Amino acid sequence: MEASSTENQFPTPRQIMSVAAKLYLRPLASILLIGSAWVGAGMWILLLQEPLMAVVAFLALSIVEIISQIMARGDVATFGPLTRANALLCSLAAAFLMGPMNLPFLLQVVIMFGALCVGLYFTLIFRRLLRNTSLPPIILPYTVLAAMMAILLPHGMSNSAQYFGWPVVEVVSFIDLPGVFLKTMGGFLYSPWLLSGAVISVLIFVWSPAMFLAGMIGWIVGALTSMGLVTSGLDPYWPPASYNFFLSGMALGAVFFLPGLRGMVIAAFAGMICALFAAVLRVYAGPSGIVYFPIPFGLTLISGILALDNPAFAPGLRRNLDWFERPEDAWIKDAWTRRRWGEQGELLAIPLVGPVAVVQGFDSKPSHRGAWKHALDFQRPLVAPGERRGRPSLFGEPVYSPAIGEVVETRNNVADNPPGKANYGDNWGNYLVLRTGAGNHVLLAHFMQGSIAVAPRQWVDYTTYLGAVGNSGRSTVSHLHMQVQAGSEPGAPTKPFRLANYHTFGGE
Amino acid sequence: MEASSTENQFPTPRQIMSVAAKLYLRPLASILLIGSAWVGAGMWILLLQEPLMAVVAFLALSIVEIISQIMARGDVATFGPLTRANALLCSLAAAFLMGPMNLPFLLQVVIMFGALCVGLYFTLIFRRLLRNTSLPPIILPYTVLAAMMAILLPHGMSNSAQYFGWPVVEVVSFIDLPGVFLKTMGGFLYSPWLLSGAVISVLIFVWSPAMFLAGMIGWIVGALTSMGLVTSGLDPYWPPASYNFFLSGMALGAVFFLPGLRGMVIAAFAGMICALFAAVLRVYAGPSGIVYFPIPFGLTLISGILALDNPAFAPGLRRNLDWFERPEDAWIKDAWTRRRWGEQGELLAIPLVGPVAVVQGFDSKPSHRGAWKHALDFQRPLVAPGERRGRPSLFGEPVYSPAIGEVVETRNNVADNPPGKANYGDNWGNYLVLRTGAGNHVLLAHFMQGSIAVAPRQWVDYTTYLGAVGNSGRSTVSHLHMQVQAGSEPGAPTKPFRLANYHTFGGE
Amino acid sequence: MEASSTENQFPTPRQIMSVAAKLYLRPLASILLIGSAWVGAGMWILLLQEPLMAVVAFLALSIVEIISQIMARGDVATFGPLTRANALLCSLAAAFLMGPMNLPFLLQVVIMFGALCVGLYFTLIFRRLLRNTSLPPIILPYTVLAAMMAILLPHGMSNSAQYFGWPVVEVVSFIDLPGVFLKTMGGFLYSPWLLSGAVISVLIFVWSPAMFLAGMIGWIVGALTSMGLVTSGLDPYWPPASYNFFLSGMALGAVFFLPGLRGMVIAAFAGMICALFAAVLRVYAGPSGIVYFPIPFGLTLISGILALDNPAFAPGLRRNLDWFERPEDAWIKDAWTRRRWGEQGELLAIPLVGPVAVVQGFDSKPSHRGAWKHALDFQRPLVAPGERRGRPSLFGEPVYSPAIGEVVETRNNVADNPPGKANYGDNWGNYLVLRTGAGNHVLLAHFMQGSIAVAPRQWVDYTTYLGAVGNSGRSTVSHLHMQVQAGSEPGAPTKPFRLANYHTFGGE
Repeated sequence: MEASSTENQFPTPRQIMSVAAKLYLRPLASILLIGSAWVGAGMWILLLQEPLMAVVAFLALSIVEIISQIMARGDVATFGPLTRANALLCSLAAAFLMGPMNLPFLLQVVIMFGALCVGLYFTLIFRRLLRNTSLPPIILPYTVLAAMMAILLPHGMSNSAQYFGWPVVEVVSFIDLPGVFLKTMGGFLYSPWLLSGAVISVLIFVWSPAMFLAGMIGWIVGALTSMGLVTSGLDPYWPPASYNFFLSGMALGAVFFLPGLRGMVIAAFAGMICALFAAVLRVYAGPSGIVYFPIPFGLTLISGILALDNPAFAPGLRRNLDWFERPEDAWIKDAWTRRRWGEQGELLAIPLVGPVAVVQGFDSKPSHRGAWKHALDFQRPLVAPGERRGRPSLFGEPVYSPAIGEVVETRNNVADNPPGKANYGDNWGNYLVLRTGAGNHVLLAHFMQGSIAVAPRQWVDYTTYLGAVGNSGRSTVSHLHMQVQAGSEPGAPTKPFRLANYHTFGGE
Repeated sequence: MEASSTENQFPTPRQIMSVAAKLYLRPLASILLIGSAWVGAGMWILLLQEPLMAVVAFLALSIVEIISQIMARGDVATFGPLTRANALLCSLAAAFLMGPMNLPFLLQVVIMFGALCVGLYFTLIFRRLLRNTSLPPIILPYTVLAAMMAILLPHGMSNSAQYFGWPVVEVVSFIDLPGVFLKTMGGFLYSPWLLSGAVISVLIFVWSPAMFLAGMIGWIVGALTSMGLVTSGLDPYWPPASYNFFLSGMALGAVFFLPGLRGMVIAAFAGMICALFAAVLRVYAGPSGIVYFPIPFGLTLISGILALDNPAFAPGLRRNLDWFERPEDAWIKDAWTRRRWGEQGELLAIPLVGPVAVVQGFDSKPSHRGAWKHALDFQRPLVAPGERRGRPSLFGEPVYSPAIGEVVETRNNVADNPPGKANYGDNWGNYLVLRTGAGNHVLLAHFMQGSIAVAPRQWVDYTTYLGAVGNSGRSTVSHLHMQVQAGSEPGAPTKPFRLANYHTFGGE
Repeated sequence: MEASSTENQFPTPRQIMSVAAKLYLRPLASILLIGSAWVGAGMWILLLQEPLMAVVAFLALSIVEIISQIMARGDVATFGPLTRANALLCSLAAAFLMGPMNLPFLLQVVIMFGALCVGLYFTLIFRRLLRNTSLPPIILPYTVLAAMMAILLPHGMSNSAQYFGWPVVEVVSFIDLPGVFLKTMGGFLYSPWLLSGAVISVLIFVWSPAMFLAGMIGWIVGALTSMGLVTSGLDPYWPPASYNFFLSGMALGAVFFLPGLRGMVIAAFAGMICALFAAVLRVYAGPSGIVYFPIPFGLTLISGILALDNPAFAPGLRRNLDWFERPEDAWIKDAWTRRRWGEQGELLAIPLVGPVAVVQGFDSKPSHRGAWKHALDFQRPLVAPGERRGRPSLFGEPVYSPAIGEVVETRNNVADNPPGKANYGDNWGNYLVLRTGAGNHVLLAHFMQGSIAVAPRQWVDYTTYLGAVGNSGRSTVSHLHMQVQAGSEPGAPTKPFRLANYHTFGGE
């Protein structure tokens, strides 16, 4: 807060909005796997229908922030939206289940606070357990707490549903399905009514049509599977739990994997698997109502990511690791990234230290074209996005080896150009060529004169210092050129390669 | 398929057999942890007794292959026999449980197809979960699906057993045991009759007497344990589940660990543990019949490998990682391997790149004898097994350091011999001696003249280039000689060592 | 045993005591997470009240030792006290549950032996599963066996409690709590009587007041939580299980984390969580009595360590990895360690091989003071504690790089001093300065003349040989001086740093 530097200044409306978004809006939206504060605002309006729940939600999110501030002494990361959402859901579940119990007010407060603390506790545990995996701890803490509460209060769910006047959801024919769909969508916020469901559907659709489509597919297939099980003689009272099918299709088909045709097939499969899990859980756990918590979704999500996130399987299925973005945006970014610096070939480390930008990528103007299209030019990133001049210079910065290999050829005696001038006589300036273990040749070019510190036949590793960035050869500004070649001669036709440690960041 | 190069050619009988073995025979045999297509053929004949099951099995394995082909675009690995066996078992279980349900035919087909897909899905999950462990995903996917079906259809197993006319299995006295044994062995293929069991027993015995013996021991101890539990007042109706005891003893006593006396003790223990698991599961899961699926075997296998695969425990107990081989063959190979290049001492990396063969191992003729017996000579492997002349030359190939250490001594000026001639004056030719962190000395010998690229006092790591393979000294063909010595003088008495990254391959 | 060298010598009383402590006393004490043989002796006296249990315990621990000796061929580690305690508890549980069953004596012996073997088996499994985690396998093997027995004998616990005449424990008002507390403390040893509980309480208090305090806090909060649940209408018959609350508070508040004010807060939270787990388990598992085994404690311990052992969370909460020590001693050692060589800043490897001692630490006399306080002097440790002269010399020993970085400056031409003399003209003697990736400078000083093997601009890694330890500059005995500086000039003001691989050992 810049406000704290002057004493008498009130926070600006913008600051208040930003804090509200972080503390109250995004956590609510992240229940739908959405990162938008606007969607969160829409959900708050829905939540106000049930004023008691809204009060509980507000208090819960406030308490989480207080705990976060208490624990954040030092430079410790505070809670993210998912952690907040889990604590919120735990408090709401406690409030919901306590509805018909007529406990003293103070005891209710203690129990809700306890549920919130236990929710945070389980969040810490799952964050730790899933630390080195690619699995999100999404809904698991809430799920465990819900399971515990369902065991302690075996009829809590049905009592509460009656107490809050929840409608009975029946499926007699296909004509009932739209109504069931909207009611179960309302169930996300403990309000299984047509209007709530419609609003939530619109919110999701406006945020991301891909997510809505994948969710719909998951729901339809899940509903059909459940109706098939009913035909087989089972009786899983599935409709209220069916928002799980929507969540499963949406999560696997569009959120955790990039959306696309393949994603729609996966959404359908996710809906089927989720319906099976729900049926098994319904029969196993009996009338406890535990299935109406998002446990089938949690099982489908975890098992789906484990089964599908496998590079040797389903080529072309791509994880979306920054899943709070709109899936459509993530898809575009991924497509652009692959066009810019490849997804196959030799895996090279970035040979520079600190942040770098690829200022000229694969198959791009002016010079990475034709047989030389698989080449990258590195510079420092812009200091501020949009400010074209704001690049710190790389001149003199150390270059480390991008691979394990043997030095094949070096040149070290080309003078560096003054900024803005290029030396068209010596295209590559000072350069070196490495031969990697895979038999490819890596050309690094435009080194500073006299800086190359390795010699032919020398073996280099990722920590080997090769030389310093310069501005020699056909270069008007200090940068490092890297390409992978089929042959050892500088300028031989290039081959695609990948970068091991490049992360995109905004703007470029 | 070479056939595809000419258009009008039909597949040869040999090609048909090979495809049949892969698609239909081996998957069935691998239910018994056997890699032989012949055993699979025998089991198919048994399966034909129950024509419906045979049809289901044939369709299931065909569909798996179709899915495998669809998913195999690019260079993706297709399903192995275990994955196919799991999908097969899932389909058979679905068919078995649906027997008495009188569902419409189309629904039956859909359910069997769904069971197959879910089986493949769980196989993917378990392959991922167990990826970095030494545990096989053997029977777990099938087990999870079976558990789900047992929950959905709590009386499915007993209804189906009645429907298919399965005999009641009673144990009144020890005299009943042989009959129980044969019937439960038939249970492997959903046909618990004396003849089926006898045929399966013979198939296993002919493939590997060690497996049969370990299985028998496991079964006997498991049966005695179960009878003891009955005497204690419990009533686990154990006989139909007792093929689990056989599988457990066989798997832990002979398949996943190399067979031997120790293996027989382990087989007995495995039988006891499996009987306990079966009894607990029987009491816990009540009359659901889930215990008659191979869940007790799965628990015993996983827990047994976790408990026993511990280098600090049970010295001499050796894992068999290539467990589709006959255990007897694996045992012989292991014994030969240990004699050839040791199992103790300094752990060295192979200092060469690409495939290599140990052409003269520990304690072997003509020169690795007596005090110099712990030495290895590396060459390239034969191009084709049996073709003695077909070794590509190593001459000039780079040698990297086999250890982290310091160079102690080098010699670089001995001329390389013409092929077939040896220089008896300079025994080691061009060589170098490293001192490792553990204080041992490694001698590498017969380098190419002038190729040694390191100098005394220099520290080397696994990626350090040391020189090139040559034919100097007492050597008639280019090869690399490596030994670990007690002292630094070339030719000091040798000590045993191990190779970190050597894998045997056929023929040598 | 030195006794074995002369033939006619009997073991001395001291030897007998030492064996008894290892085989019989410490395993019993480790049930209370205590490493003291004296506490174990006190518990044996208590155990003698119930002679049958004492006989079982004695036999069980003897058999464990026999198995340990059989399996210990070669240089294999034998069982530690926790493994023995688990096997002991398994046997005691079997004996307890078999009490009212009137089985033939031989069958009883077989069952107890089986329980012991299964206990050891599960210990091996959990040791393997938790191998690379920071979780102790404490009570889990016993817990799994207890759960299996509770399933097999659903009324075993209540029958046995009746059979052994256990008192019913009721809580009507707060006045009952002290009695409940003492009875449940007696439950540790299957003797829930006031006197047993009082003795156990005294034993814990005398060993470590911090442990007792944390346990009390856990118990009180757990009891209040349970009473709150009773008020909410649940009926977890919690008193007999409440030793779990004590164990949980003690384990998390004082044993596995260093005790302190923060530990007392954690103990309270642990008591609450444990009470919740116990209530859920009680309701879930019904009247099986499984909750009276330490399962709630196991769940609380594992989840608590997972949630709290997080460097990014709860700064200042410190694990106690050597948790068999008295917590107070561990706390003192930790505080002393941090004062001596820091807990923040650059993480460096010890640049020497073999055991080393820090003979002058941070902010210590005579020379690591003021701006130069963050410096360490390394020598070899004393050969025998207390023997001041007994340090082997480091002279000539190799020095490796403590970090990845670039050499900035070296000096190599200062003569080494004769022992006892110092060269005040060249303060640092032969030295080198590295610049690390984090931008700090590391000064290593007092090298042997002419030994420095690296040059400025050279990049070094942890395996790079830098030079040899000497006695040049202001040094009277061969040692290595290491400090981290804000600037590159030797003698620039120092910054705190940490050592990556230093382990304290006795005496220094």
